Amino acid sequence: MSGRPVLVWASTRQKARYRRGMDRVERRLDAVAAGPAGALGEACRATLAAGGKRVRPLLTLLCARADAALGEPVLRAATAVELVHMATLVHDDVLDRAELRRGRPTVAHAFGVETAVSVGNFLLARAFQELAETGDATAVDTLSAAAVGLSEGEVLQRDDSHRLTVTVAEYERRCERKTADLFAAACRLGALLGAAPAAAAALADYGRLIGLAFQVFDDILDCSGDELATGKRPGTDVRDGTVTLPMIYALEAEPRLGLLLARHDLAAAEVDETLSIIAASGALERARAVALGYIEEARSALAGCPGTVEHGLLEQVAAQVVDRYS
Amino acid sequence: MSGRPVLVWASTRQKARYRRGMDRVERRLDAVAAGPAGALGEACRATLAAGGKRVRPLLTLLCARADAALGEPVLRAATAVELVHMATLVHDDVLDRAELRRGRPTVAHAFGVETAVSVGNFLLARAFQELAETGDATAVDTLSAAAVGLSEGEVLQRDDSHRLTVTVAEYERRCERKTADLFAAACRLGALLGAAPAAAAALADYGRLIGLAFQVFDDILDCSGDELATGKRPGTDVRDGTVTLPMIYALEAEPRLGLLLARHDLAAAEVDETLSIIAASGALERARAVALGYIEEARSALAGCPGTVEHGLLEQVAAQVVDRYS
Repeated sequence: MSGRPVLVWASTRQKARYRRGMDRVERRLDAVAAGPAGALGEACRATLAAGGKRVRPLLTLLCARADAALGEPVLRAATAVELVHMATLVHDDVLDRAELRRGRPTVAHAFGVETAVSVGNFLLARAFQELAETGDATAVDTLSAAAVGLSEGEVLQRDDSHRLTVTVAEYERRCERKTADLFAAACRLGALLGAAPAAAAALADYGRLIGLAFQVFDDILDCSGDELATGKRPGTDVRDGTVTLPMIYALEAEPRLGLLLARHDLAAAEVDETLSIIAASGALERARAVALGYIEEARSALAGCPGTVEHGLLEQVAAQVVDRYS
Repeated sequence: MSGRPVLVWASTRQKARYRRGMDRVERRLDAVAAGPAGALGEACRATLAAGGKRVRPLLTLLCARADAALGEPVLRAATAVELVHMATLVHDDVLDRAELRRGRPTVAHAFGVETAVSVGNFLLARAFQELAETGDATAVDTLSAAAVGLSEGEVLQRDDSHRLTVTVAEYERRCERKTADLFAAACRLGALLGAAPAAAAALADYGRLIGLAFQVFDDILDCSGDELATGKRPGTDVRDGTVTLPMIYALEAEPRLGLLLARHDLAAAEVDETLSIIAASGALERARAVALGYIEEARSALAGCPGTVEHGLLEQVAAQVVDRYS
């Protein structure tokens, strides 16, 4: 889950060029975190050091087809997208009262909730500053719309907590705002600022579908994963009453699950029991099939793109999203 | 402190036009708050209903000299500036654990810290979206730089809490980030998008100085004001250990004050005692003289501006900042 970008299986010259692009994004992120003095800088550097998959900026680079001449605007957009993602993680840990992320203390836990709120705001504002310097207001509009959606998704998730009547369509809508909109923005920004503006809509759709698959796999993992592999305690969604796709399917098969998912005070053993019921219901496999369906749709969106688009590597990212959760 | 915009003493046709402009900004703010469903929308509407002085968007309009033809970009900028300010207030109440603002429950208190964090993010992202739609990336850059400064100022204030060695220069630097940078951005955006781009630097300086005066008066009021008039409990800074200008001056005159200001657990009677010592030291008058000095400097910055700038009404805003605290 942690550490280096997705594109680690690079070996050809083409892939090596993207690796160099990602290194330049990483240095820009380092520069952002190096800026502020005091607790703000420390917290930013700790957030960066905790790493991440950097899948969003990689998508920006690939959608820009930025293998040969990697322009400054594309680099800025890739950096801005990751900064928005980092801001979300820092604030999410405030919202979820999480103590660990990827096995390390969260900013909220290590520096306090107050600093975490400010750190998130700093990263968000820096993202827009980074993007504004491309001189492209459409790019800012794309990213701000995704950031608006993110905050809407957060509140939607809390409004819906412990509501057992959440439908698959409502769940998908929440995933779009929480996750897929930013994936779509990452791809759209790459296409717009790079070599494929005509393919921007199709690539945004590819990104949205990859994002949906990503979120469904994440939700499956929260029901089934183990802490050593993921760096996160499983069962967070069950504890918080966040009704995810596996739970929606499990509720159809096992209505008695509702009694557990409705409760706000599950003991550790009851969380484990809930996860066992979900696993035994076949819901994880059904959810997995849905995620694979999104990946298939993402491939179709790609197939309709012109030859100037980086088909091969974008296909590999789609495959990689699946592999990492197998 | 609360309620309608500063420009209430308008009577001439010229002023009435600005009032109409402010009404249009208000309708745009209403439209932003009307957007989201559920708790997010409710919290946004409660934040708006709590009102505010709207001094920042008024400055944007005045610096645009937007009395005759009020262009869409200027309206968007004025709205965006107020949205950033509102986002800051909502997050500040999380940071300060405040229960009341302008005599009403804060979002953090009424809707919970989690929702307040998301509401602030929503307002911030909406501000950038509003501004991006002007198509002017320089405008986005101006506002994002101010928003970066705001988050830096917040952490700076916490890093410095209970540090009795804070200097006047350090205090001023903190006020610039916390308050004056956004005032400066409000004025710069008006000038850039309105009829006075050549005066943008001078008007930004005017705004910065008005903002500094505003913050110093606010800090004086927190030491001396009464709750009925301000809607806020006085002594918040003393309780939080936020060393403000009156305290810096009072510490010079009354070193024994340091024993009280260093403590994290002052009882209500001790807070009152501390405020009495500050008042008796003559520090409030010294701080007031500094604020008046900023106002004087702001007037000088204005005086250097060409005749196309709205000298008269901007002078009146400067006077109004003083009057409201007299």
